[in-house]
Amino acid sequence: MGEVLAGYLTAQAGAFLRALPQAVGEAGSRPGALPASAAAADDLLRSVRRVGGALHTFGAAFDPAWAQESRTELRWLLNLLAQEPAYQRRSTRLLAALDSLADTDPAGPGMLAGHAGAPKARALLDRQLTLARTRVHTVLLQELRSARLHALADRMTLLSGDVPLLDGEASAPAEALLPRAGAALAALSAGAERLPLQRAAVPYGGGGLHRLGTAADVRGPVADAETAVAADDAPWLRARILLKRARYALEVCGAPVPELDGLDRVLGRHQEAADAAVTAATAARTPRITPATAYVLGVVHADQRLEVEAARYAFGQQWPGLAPGLGGWEGPPAPRKA
Amino acid sequence: MGEVLAGYLTAQAGAFLRALPQAVGEAGSRPGALPASAAAADDLLRSVRRVGGALHTFGAAFDPAWAQESRTELRWLLNLLAQEPAYQRRSTRLLAALDSLADTDPAGPGMLAGHAGAPKARALLDRQLTLARTRVHTVLLQELRSARLHALADRMTLLSGDVPLLDGEASAPAEALLPRAGAALAALSAGAERLPLQRAAVPYGGGGLHRLGTAADVRGPVADAETAVAADDAPWLRARILLKRARYALEVCGAPVPELDGLDRVLGRHQEAADAAVTAATAARTPRITPATAYVLGVVHADQRLEVEAARYAFGQQWPGLAPGLGGWEGPPAPRKA
Repeated sequence: MGEVLAGYLTAQAGAFLRALPQAVGEAGSRPGALPASAAAADDLLRSVRRVGGALHTFGAAFDPAWAQESRTELRWLLNLLAQEPAYQRRSTRLLAALDSLADTDPAGPGMLAGHAGAPKARALLDRQLTLARTRVHTVLLQELRSARLHALADRMTLLSGDVPLLDGEASAPAEALLPRAGAALAALSAGAERLPLQRAAVPYGGGGLHRLGTAADVRGPVADAETAVAADDAPWLRARILLKRARYALEVCGAPVPELDGLDRVLGRHQEAADAAVTAATAARTPRITPATAYVLGVVHADQRLEVEAARYAFGQQWPGLAPGLGGWEGPPAPRKA
Repeated sequence: MGEVLAGYLTAQAGAFLRALPQAVGEAGSRPGALPASAAAADDLLRSVRRVGGALHTFGAAFDPAWAQESRTELRWLLNLLAQEPAYQRRSTRLLAALDSLADTDPAGPGMLAGHAGAPKARALLDRQLTLARTRVHTVLLQELRSARLHALADRMTLLSGDVPLLDGEASAPAEALLPRAGAALAALSAGAERLPLQRAAVPYGGGGLHRLGTAADVRGPVADAETAVAADDAPWLRARILLKRARYALEVCGAPVPELDGLDRVLGRHQEAADAAVTAATAARTPRITPATAYVLGVVHADQRLEVEAARYAFGQQWPGLAPGLGGWEGPPAPRKA
């Protein structure tokens, strides 16, 4: 088991160290040029997610304090790195949705074709998202020069050479990984069971706009829509985290399930649409906008919640066929890499 | 054939004459009380539609001038009677949608829960729809005392006693009705073929908000969204008319197809949601509304277009299973009433 797990972590830590200088820029390069490469930043995010996931699922194999600290630092970097590309994608998504809604092409106009509020709403969203991106970029630049990042890089350098497995774990057979990966799959199944899949299975059930779910502990009238929507989205966002962990656990075992990649993309679309909807709703509260702008933002907001509903429907179509195979999953007879 | 057709028209004209005094109010009753009975108005509409439909489909059996005049007068009364209940339904639909979107019940809040614009948008929609209803009601009151209505009532009295069939039609066998009913079904099939059913068959295809269809003769950029949306809806509204005619033709033949009633309801929902969406968009153009009100109206507008899309999806699910049976329809061996 130790061999497989160490091999995986060593490879991922190596990928981390290769991507870091390009993503962060060489020492001494002008800070304004950061991140130097979007592709390298993607690679960095990729390995950060995988190392963090493996340390979560197979945490019992490591010194608990070391594993916990490592995960905390990786999560810090993940949050730092993920924000700017997330704003970039959100901007692309919202402006594309708006352009499609306001399209005047006779081959396929949108329901806001030629609406006076559309260019104003577009400019407002563009301005607010550019501002948000600039803000997280500035924070990123500061943090990338921090001692904290250097310490994390050192930690990954160590990991790329010598994985600090507990005594006994290194010599355990590879099959010992399977129950832990199985636990990650069981957590995913349990998370999926908390989703309102029956409602999502009916297209146009209206769940995206009407009759949202709320956290069980909410009593009395819902204070505001944002709280209600966030409570409605929470189990889906949670399922996405569990799904990523399950994917990485299966990767460690050398037994990836490609359908999970597809479901991960569906839940990624769910989250991006949910975040975009919040951005549209927030933009609509900007003081002194015209009613036409606000009206267009209302349509865009509903359109993104519709995308949320569509992603839930897609998940509800794919998951039930996949779940039975995963529920009783005990891994392949022997992991391929073992 | 004459016997069957005459029997149907006599019965419908009788229903018309029974419903008329209640719907219109007795002579001498206070005009403000009109229409005296909503149920009677429904019955009246029901027979107006059926007589008009039968005169259209089986028009060749009658004196052409008489049939044409009768259809014109019936269509006039139909438009007159249908408007007030349509506004009533639209009001119910829009206010219910808004209440559901703004619901703060923790058991199922909406995406506009607690939004400041929701009560304002509700009051605006309510006011505008009440005004529109009052306006059509006033017109209805005037027209119900008109010589034109008395003439139509006289025409229906004649029809209830003696259906003016052409020579030879009265003695034709009942089977002669079938090719004419078949032609109504063929017109429905042709109308359904013009619908973008393939797009509608994919739930969340986004056709309701994005990539609307337009009339083939539109060139250059679409002038405004209302034109684009109207062009997108047109083939569906046309299909609804053809479906009603087909239903009534089958009724005349004593061979109703219950599935067509269901499809008629789906297309009725399509039309009501499309009309409600226009009302929301129009309300959003009211001068001096607040941005919050406009924003909520944008959400309501998108929500109704989503209902339009849902109705198209429902039609696309039901129609293909039904169409083959209707396409080659030549009627039952002998109509039941024959």
